[in-house]
Amino acid sequence: MMLNQIYVDNLIKTALFEDINYIDVTTDYLIDENQEGAAQFLAKADGVLCGLQVALRVFEILQPDFKAEVFKKDGDVLKKGDIIAKVYGKTRTILKGERTALNLIQHMSGIATATNEAVKLVEGTKASIVDTRKTLPGMRPLQKYAVTVGGGKNHRYNLSDAAMLKDNHVDAGGGITNAVKKLKSKLGHMTKVELEVRNLDELREALSVDVDVIMLDNMTNEMMAEAVRITDGKAILEASGGITAETLRGVAETGVDIISIGALTHSVKAFDISLKIL
Amino acid sequence: MMLNQIYVDNLIKTALFEDINYIDVTTDYLIDENQEGAAQFLAKADGVLCGLQVALRVFEILQPDFKAEVFKKDGDVLKKGDIIAKVYGKTRTILKGERTALNLIQHMSGIATATNEAVKLVEGTKASIVDTRKTLPGMRPLQKYAVTVGGGKNHRYNLSDAAMLKDNHVDAGGGITNAVKKLKSKLGHMTKVELEVRNLDELREALSVDVDVIMLDNMTNEMMAEAVRITDGKAILEASGGITAETLRGVAETGVDIISIGALTHSVKAFDISLKIL
Amino acid sequence: MMLNQIYVDNLIKTALFEDINYIDVTTDYLIDENQEGAAQFLAKADGVLCGLQVALRVFEILQPDFKAEVFKKDGDVLKKGDIIAKVYGKTRTILKGERTALNLIQHMSGIATATNEAVKLVEGTKASIVDTRKTLPGMRPLQKYAVTVGGGKNHRYNLSDAAMLKDNHVDAGGGITNAVKKLKSKLGHMTKVELEVRNLDELREALSVDVDVIMLDNMTNEMMAEAVRITDGKAILEASGGITAETLRGVAETGVDIISIGALTHSVKAFDISLKIL
Amino acid sequence: MMLNQIYVDNLIKTALFEDINYIDVTTDYLIDENQEGAAQFLAKADGVLCGLQVALRVFEILQPDFKAEVFKKDGDVLKKGDIIAKVYGKTRTILKGERTALNLIQHMSGIATATNEAVKLVEGTKASIVDTRKTLPGMRPLQKYAVTVGGGKNHRYNLSDAAMLKDNHVDAGGGITNAVKKLKSKLGHMTKVELEVRNLDELREALSVDVDVIMLDNMTNEMMAEAVRITDGKAILEASGGITAETLRGVAETGVDIISIGALTHSVKAFDISLKIL
Amino acid sequence: MMLNQIYVDNLIKTALFEDINYIDVTTDYLIDENQEGAAQFLAKADGVLCGLQVALRVFEILQPDFKAEVFKKDGDVLKKGDIIAKVYGKTRTILKGERTALNLIQHMSGIATATNEAVKLVEGTKASIVDTRKTLPGMRPLQKYAVTVGGGKNHRYNLSDAAMLKDNHVDAGGGITNAVKKLKSKLGHMTKVELEVRNLDELREALSVDVDVIMLDNMTNEMMAEAVRITDGKAILEASGGITAETLRGVAETGVDIISIGALTHSVKAFDISLKIL
Amino acid sequence: MMLNQIYVDNLIKTALFEDINYIDVTTDYLIDENQEGAAQFLAKADGVLCGLQVALRVFEILQPDFKAEVFKKDGDVLKKGDIIAKVYGKTRTILKGERTALNLIQHMSGIATATNEAVKLVEGTKASIVDTRKTLPGMRPLQKYAVTVGGGKNHRYNLSDAAMLKDNHVDAGGGITNAVKKLKSKLGHMTKVELEVRNLDELREALSVDVDVIMLDNMTNEMMAEAVRITDGKAILEASGGITAETLRGVAETGVDIISIGALTHSVKAFDISLKIL
Repeated sequence: MMLNQIYVDNLIKTALFEDINYIDVTTDYLIDENQEGAAQFLAKADGVLCGLQVALRVFEILQPDFKAEVFKKDGDVLKKGDIIAKVYGKTRTILKGERTALNLIQHMSGIATATNEAVKLVEGTKASIVDTRKTLPGMRPLQKYAVTVGGGKNHRYNLSDAAMLKDNHVDAGGGITNAVKKLKSKLGHMTKVELEVRNLDELREALSVDVDVIMLDNMTNEMMAEAVRITDGKAILEASGGITAETLRGVAETGVDIISIGALTHSVKAFDISLKIL
Repeated sequence: MMLNQIYVDNLIKTALFEDINYIDVTTDYLIDENQEGAAQFLAKADGVLCGLQVALRVFEILQPDFKAEVFKKDGDVLKKGDIIAKVYGKTRTILKGERTALNLIQHMSGIATATNEAVKLVEGTKASIVDTRKTLPGMRPLQKYAVTVGGGKNHRYNLSDAAMLKDNHVDAGGGITNAVKKLKSKLGHMTKVELEVRNLDELREALSVDVDVIMLDNMTNEMMAEAVRITDGKAILEASGGITAETLRGVAETGVDIISIGALTHSVKAFDISLKIL
Repeated sequence: MMLNQIYVDNLIKTALFEDINYIDVTTDYLIDENQEGAAQFLAKADGVLCGLQVALRVFEILQPDFKAEVFKKDGDVLKKGDIIAKVYGKTRTILKGERTALNLIQHMSGIATATNEAVKLVEGTKASIVDTRKTLPGMRPLQKYAVTVGGGKNHRYNLSDAAMLKDNHVDAGGGITNAVKKLKSKLGHMTKVELEVRNLDELREALSVDVDVIMLDNMTNEMMAEAVRITDGKAILEASGGITAETLRGVAETGVDIISIGALTHSVKAFDISLKIL
Repeated sequence: MMLNQIYVDNLIKTALFEDINYIDVTTDYLIDENQEGAAQFLAKADGVLCGLQVALRVFEILQPDFKAEVFKKDGDVLKKGDIIAKVYGKTRTILKGERTALNLIQHMSGIATATNEAVKLVEGTKASIVDTRKTLPGMRPLQKYAVTVGGGKNHRYNLSDAAMLKDNHVDAGGGITNAVKKLKSKLGHMTKVELEVRNLDELREALSVDVDVIMLDNMTNEMMAEAVRITDGKAILEASGGITAETLRGVAETGVDIISIGALTHSVKAFDISLKIL
Repeated sequence: MMLNQIYVDNLIKTALFEDINYIDVTTDYLIDENQEGAAQFLAKADGVLCGLQVALRVFEILQPDFKAEVFKKDGDVLKKGDIIAKVYGKTRTILKGERTALNLIQHMSGIATATNEAVKLVEGTKASIVDTRKTLPGMRPLQKYAVTVGGGKNHRYNLSDAAMLKDNHVDAGGGITNAVKKLKSKLGHMTKVELEVRNLDELREALSVDVDVIMLDNMTNEMMAEAVRITDGKAILEASGGITAETLRGVAETGVDIISIGALTHSVKAFDISLKIL
Repeated sequence: MMLNQIYVDNLIKTALFEDINYIDVTTDYLIDENQEGAAQFLAKADGVLCGLQVALRVFEILQPDFKAEVFKKDGDVLKKGDIIAKVYGKTRTILKGERTALNLIQHMSGIATATNEAVKLVEGTKASIVDTRKTLPGMRPLQKYAVTVGGGKNHRYNLSDAAMLKDNHVDAGGGITNAVKKLKSKLGHMTKVELEVRNLDELREALSVDVDVIMLDNMTNEMMAEAVRITDGKAILEASGGITAETLRGVAETGVDIISIGALTHSVKAFDISLKIL
């Protein structure tokens, strides 16, 4: 899978240990160890699939010879009623892994589906939809990956791989020009610099010091359109701050390059997928 | 704090390592190590606070002598604009911990707020609101705790601390009566047994074999009301399955004891709290 | 295996790292890497087998294609001289895993054997033998499982999955009646409540507030028999406190439902099993 | 403390996570967070104390400002009724840490007490009592330390810090002489070599090739006495194999230097210490 | 400290557990627990200090109230004989932590010193010295930080935070132009793209597709000088491949922007610092 | 492999997580998941191979069905241009694992090569080359193993498996004679004792108290030769302190038994091996 499997395996093991503890009192006491079973993942709504390999890996970790027949793959559009995959293994394995597998695939498909809705809303404009660092602890890899599966792109992963100057950094650095210069003298050549501006004066100063990306923080669409004109392609412009499905199209039409949406990862609605035992 | 701090510390360290990696290139390169700062947590909406001690612990882990002045505590009702707490420490600490602290407190307060809305919707009925095992990997402790802070109660924590028989268990066990008997012969005396029933005949059989809790799976309100009459207090009745804010009151008025809602933890809307640097 | 394999694998890896460190100077320097060998697990006493799959897993972790032929399974009665299993793999694997495998199977079989002796001593009474939380750090899953293999049952697993009120809880809660009421208003519906009583007056108050289980702490057999009469089936009665092989039958004959014995897990006598290289 | 605190802290955290999980439903729901309490560790039998600092560390980890007043230290002889230490902190801390602290101190004191009994049994002879690698997974540091506290000494810690040739190694190495030579050509100068012999011919060959220690495996006392005469101080002699309290003195009187006893760590009887809340 | 302390603490604990195991037989058996001591870190050569806070943290982890008096800080030039810091604590702490602290500070100062030598060699040119991903497992944070302390800069941290196309990527992507376009359609806006070229034709194609950085792989100085002329500031040029102290100045004088040197982290010469006990 | 694979796997996973993070943006976005490839490890210099199985394990962890064809093994002498092994798997696997595999095999082969050079320099003398505890955090197993592959031997692994008295221990113990006696009364019979001496008087006292090894700390060759005469085989003599390739032969010719060289592991020059994709 594309996601780092070492991370995925650790996360699954954490989840399974959390959910099973030492024994599954219902399954282990009632289901014979040798009973074989099958089950299918079923879409219960329309959306975009994400996390299938992660969900299947749950069962593989519990039972290395577990088998799956796969009908859909990450990124595929799902219609309610679609069979996503069939799985074959011990009934105990299916019952013990069910909840963990569903928790993962529903969360990831929820992100991919919501991202995809946002991507569609900006179609025809030049805006890309990106995520933020507003993720859940230990789940950033899964969540960032799900955004890309839904057609979005990833913002910086963490505080070390790109620089973002907010007002505190600017103030501490002696104003936009000085702060950016000081920072650039220390950053490696592979590290981009983004600067948050709150008005058009700050935008103009930002443009004069050559940053890679300028974030327009909580501006009106009118201000953003003006910012696009002023910038004229000399930097990437990112709109940010409380953008919703309702306001998204309008923001995109201002001509900004990037729209970042925290809710993609901080307010995820699980996408309904069931595991029906056959 | 009430939550197991060993768990909390591990989770925070995972989150901080994920977010900071080896260095915060913006903060560490621009902000002087000795610069002191202050900031305040501010409610940006109405809701129920949860996770304040967890959020403060983020900063304490980064800087053991970090100080906080606390105005609200977990479970308190928040109004938009309320100052929740003020924090004092190195500016670097505040900027490096900000995102992780907010991700945690927003998620937990989101759960508490949604739970509290559900609890209010059933006020005056005998129904309790409970969570499920539909949680995010590695976050079950935080999420279960947040449900109680919002006024809900916890369902079983994992597969080992209570038994829940679904149709597969019943079939493998030779029918409700046999399965329950077999299971009870193996369970410890501190472990409760819940049985999922899909119709009133199964309910009657369940009542005849003395289980602690009976789950009414995806039943209409009429069927549930009838189930309440049939049961007549001889078992705890739990309603479950796709219950929403719209349908919740109706379900509660059927007279069931327990209403479990997966969305409390699987579809969390972050509650908006900001950390404003002073 | 019934035990959570993720837990088991972690424990085995901890044990192997502790025992082998970076190299086995004797085996790695003397035994050719390609030399194949075989060995058999042999019972050196009479008892109950427990932990065979855990012991075999030690070798499988060291060498994934390791093979075993199994003649006994967990729960089987062993006679001195019984061959339990034969194993086939590299001689290096056998020699490096031997000690760790034996330490595990001997400890687990010791618990199962001692539990089974206790179970036999109460045969014909209504009493069940259960364990306690007096386990060794990090070994609770193994130890609790071994108790069930020996015919005993498990008491609560930890402090979060069932409530147990001791005198401090009762005092802090304002007496038995108030404390139990307060607690029940907060506990989930899947969580049982046990109350420890030290005399018959406390027992009567406990019965009036509807707890699931009442622990009779360090009472004489006469008091316990009287407690059974008073209770008359309205709660589960648990005898606890320094019960030994000598006193066990007498306690069981008082009519209590449950006898909990800390020594099952805190004072384990290893059951003698050897691994004889063929 | 003498034990590596990094190890101790990890073990305690594992134990506390195992025992508390996410919340202590009884204590956290009934005891006020601010209630302060005190308790004392009390000896309930005669023996040797071990593990006091480990037990106190349990509470310190739960509550960094926890206080203790210490009356005894590791290695001290305890009489039934002795107060070992008083502890002061939040009642919640005491109740949540109690079981974990007692499980540790009882196990460690049990080992120290049993070791000390063995040491006394061989007083006046030249024999030292040592442990083995028959320890419990993840607990070897605690157990080896407890043996020294009881007056015993430690055998090799693991497979990498000393060499021990058993028959398989000897066979694979082409007989005692060849195997020892081959091994010595590879071992570092800080690594001792022990050879297991099953008869006096093997002993003589062992003496001719200059090993540091010779293990007399399951020999009669007569054979061992003869071995002592033959060896005449040219190697350290270790008696090993099923030695019990009954047979120990006799073995020691054969004149061997070392008696290793697996039961010191594989069959530990918990030493009874209580934590009485004041 | 600037380095993520959560990472640093984990690394130190790993090192201390590796080095001390369960006990320091020499120190714990000979030095009284209460004996206090002092020691000083002393430069034994000329160079650049790096890792002082990491080294001091070793002792702090062993003994929280350990004290240090600091005379130099990371980045300071050291002359042979300079006293870097004095430390005060238990003699046991000093002796147990000494080796681990020295191993860390010597390695980090070795990197900073070598980097600084390289930085001085290119003084007056426009070239910056940067590191690579040729680091040691688990030590990348320490090593990357040490490079910056020596005056160098960091190349990308890992495979996810910047893109680098080598010939395999280009071939799989259908040539330079197609591969870069395909990649850019997927990358986030904060991620830079570097392309490795082996000749000037590839360089020209790279310039036509707008990559951020172009790596000149193992080119002669003449080719690089020509590449600088062709590029004319339209991309950042990085020289790479087997550059040594002897060849460095020549490379820098070609006019390239960046010179990456794997040896800074893969072939570290420890800088000699001693800890002298006073 | 000889090295403990549980350790090796953990180290590789740490390295891969460090290097890949959540995704390899270049490889995962450009290379098709199903594309197969092959590559070969090639020696770029003359030396001794070490770490091949570790390097291959990197790919196996990323892709369990990865295949390798092996032409050399650890300890083999390499000539520039030698093909060491060919590997076959997904192109993604090769590209993602390449850097981690090379970092490991280059470091380990660097140690083996440098050790082997030292071993050759002392050929014909009785001196053995040994390592020290001057290793890198978390890498001691790899490094100690590489020393043996190069023909050297291992000094003690850690502070618990052998005793080494330096002046502080001697002072705290009341002089050489008293300190050694006190220590021996506590040490197990499998633990060797080394004593560091700074002059010939200390040597004579050391010889009178029967230690296993005497370290001659920073002595001239003349003093060491005299020490050899005085000792006359009654203890193992170890030369230590700043010995370089230039001075090594002279030291060996003094007649010492052991020469320990910290640089073998603290100042490793990576041995150049490439992975050429075919």
